[in-house]
Amino acid sequence: MLQEPTAKTLAATPAASAVLALLLTEGPLSRVEMARRLDLSSAAVTKAARPLLDAGYLHELASERTAPGSGRPVSPLAVTAEREYFVGVKVTTDDLVDEIVGVLCDLRAQVRVSVRRPLPDRSPEAVVVELAALVDELLDAGPDYRARTRNLGIAISGDVDRARGLVRLSARFGWRDVPIGQLAAEATGLSVVVENDVKALTVAEHWFGEGVGTDSFALVTVGAGIGCGIVVDGRLLTGGFGVAGEIGHICVDPDGAPCRCGNQGCVETVATTGAILAAARAESGEADMTFGRAVERARAGDEAVKKVFAKAGTAIGLAVAAMVNIAGPERIVVSGEGLDTYDLFEERIWASFAAHAFGAAAQAPVFIRPLPFEEWARGAAAVSLRALFPQVRTHHARALTHRA
Amino acid sequence: MLQEPTAKTLAATPAASAVLALLLTEGPLSRVEMARRLDLSSAAVTKAARPLLDAGYLHELASERTAPGSGRPVSPLAVTAEREYFVGVKVTTDDLVDEIVGVLCDLRAQVRVSVRRPLPDRSPEAVVVELAALVDELLDAGPDYRARTRNLGIAISGDVDRARGLVRLSARFGWRDVPIGQLAAEATGLSVVVENDVKALTVAEHWFGEGVGTDSFALVTVGAGIGCGIVVDGRLLTGGFGVAGEIGHICVDPDGAPCRCGNQGCVETVATTGAILAAARAESGEADMTFGRAVERARAGDEAVKKVFAKAGTAIGLAVAAMVNIAGPERIVVSGEGLDTYDLFEERIWASFAAHAFGAAAQAPVFIRPLPFEEWARGAAAVSLRALFPQVRTHHARALTHRA
Ligand SMILES: [Zn+2]
Ligand SMILES: [Zn+2]
Repeated sequence: MLQEPTAKTLAATPAASAVLALLLTEGPLSRVEMARRLDLSSAAVTKAARPLLDAGYLHELASERTAPGSGRPVSPLAVTAEREYFVGVKVTTDDLVDEIVGVLCDLRAQVRVSVRRPLPDRSPEAVVVELAALVDELLDAGPDYRARTRNLGIAISGDVDRARGLVRLSARFGWRDVPIGQLAAEATGLSVVVENDVKALTVAEHWFGEGVGTDSFALVTVGAGIGCGIVVDGRLLTGGFGVAGEIGHICVDPDGAPCRCGNQGCVETVATTGAILAAARAESGEADMTFGRAVERARAGDEAVKKVFAKAGTAIGLAVAAMVNIAGPERIVVSGEGLDTYDLFEERIWASFAAHAFGAAAQAPVFIRPLPFEEWARGAAAVSLRALFPQVRTHHARALTHRA
Repeated sequence: MLQEPTAKTLAATPAASAVLALLLTEGPLSRVEMARRLDLSSAAVTKAARPLLDAGYLHELASERTAPGSGRPVSPLAVTAEREYFVGVKVTTDDLVDEIVGVLCDLRAQVRVSVRRPLPDRSPEAVVVELAALVDELLDAGPDYRARTRNLGIAISGDVDRARGLVRLSARFGWRDVPIGQLAAEATGLSVVVENDVKALTVAEHWFGEGVGTDSFALVTVGAGIGCGIVVDGRLLTGGFGVAGEIGHICVDPDGAPCRCGNQGCVETVATTGAILAAARAESGEADMTFGRAVERARAGDEAVKKVFAKAGTAIGLAVAAMVNIAGPERIVVSGEGLDTYDLFEERIWASFAAHAFGAAAQAPVFIRPLPFEEWARGAAAVSLRALFPQVRTHHARALTHRA
């Protein structure tokens, strides 16, 4: 049995929450450095850290230097990563396979073990059965995993009501108003957070990836759809009507192909894996060409197919630029399973972003890299960890207090 | 002489700041209602309100009803609007006239007096001389205005470094790195805040206009340029690289006219007053047509000129939809001097917004209305008032604490 306190109860006071969140994402740090970063007194940091040290969530590193003036040793504090674990599951489907991918992460969001399971069918009941079995497999993979795990994050594409743990609509699964959070909690005994998959990945990258240290950040995913999560002032944009970051439906060609959204020539009509495949088939005349074959052709120098990928990259760069011009993130990651083939896109994304970014926004760093499905599951685990810190916005108190 | 305390010193503690800000924007309210809205205890609200009452910034309204249970009378608190005043100045230039427009507003951001002055030239020195004279005129317009005014807001188009009171670049004035904040403070003796004009208007509308009660809000201005200010979680988006809300450079026609930003077919190439005039001249063959004449022609049913306005409206609607799809504001105002003629745009803006808004974002209410130049000056005054509450994000503590 997991002994109280847990990360959740320990993070219940604002100061402890701020200290733990800062060390999780940017530690190890000295108490003095934390006090400076959080705009707290050193005494307040020491007091907040005490119960975290006592409960084994933090430990002191050997002191390497002494504090200027006082001569006292400076012992940085570090998170004891294996003190608690978090499970993340990505429920996924594409043309080839329906599966769930699960990981067990430590407090630093490092993956300790990962597993996959095919889904026999897409019904909520079948998914919950496989999910429970997968969670069991993860919790049995290490001697202390089960005792030290309380939280499960689930990531799924579609319209998710996170507050109610509800999948309102997932076109790919054919789900409508499925209370997957409650079903999974009953099946696993864990506390469950459900989040849209792109948003989950954005939170993971903001807290534990390229977004660390930024107040504003964006992640763009390219694959079966074009998605985008945006962090402003340390929090994920959710949109007044549940819509935010919809860059896949920016129009790149008013005379273009019809889009599932009802418009014409959206980014998604040229840049999803499906759109690329359809165009490559049309260009080559090979009606049964696979995506892998299209990639081979492009890499082998087939000009017609290369042009299809180039057009997709151009549209993605334009969409990223429009998003940056409007929302102004400090840093951007472009990722997704569609970027396994990013050698075919990269140059065009850069060029198109540079052409369409307005003024100084062209300086915004854009990182382009593929992510395996395990990263999506890690995103789900990170969301369940992030959820323990609802009050934490950013680790830069000073930057915020100077802003109007 | 103004006696201490001022709104600024009174708003220095978090609770007093929250109480005053809430009453400024949404008052009158009872202490109980304020406690609920701010997630504070009633005792904390009563304590925070005391110095504000003593200093004459708040007053109690006659009690109209009794509290349920206790039988004690409920006396709502209200801001004493004339207790302090704020001056706002918009520095403006277009093809016809260079002028400054100034207003003196009360604590509820209601305009008490407004004046205009032509600018003899666009040099910073000339502008500051006229600005000081205009401020004097405003402060002399009422018996207690001078004694009760401490703050001045200045709004100007271009790239403004608000923290330093600097106009980094204003193409229309030919200014680069002009410390207008410091120059104006020296010339007037007031505390000065300088802000980009679109951002100033956004802040004014968020605190005192259509944006009241929202956490997220956007204002789009149409005129010599297409601008947009976006509020997220109660704060204005500023952008990691100083760029945010740049919807004027969304591409609506890849084969369109060249834009000042270096791209082709941006919204600004079809929807600014200049672009509309150029197209109306080209369509009609009248090379010396004025904007007023183009409006007359369109209203009289000239199909070619009507089409020019329709094309502009369509581009504006698309730009608003793209912004809403990405940033997700709860409510949107479309305004600006270009909308004096909004009878020629309105229908197309609606239709185009509805066509391009993604899913539930089409439900976002869009208000279309023209604003006189005095409103821009009021925006500047509102910014100087808003600046006294740097910590206040939103008046909906509960909504925020439930968000991840
Ligand atoms: Zn679309
Ligand atoms: Zn442009």
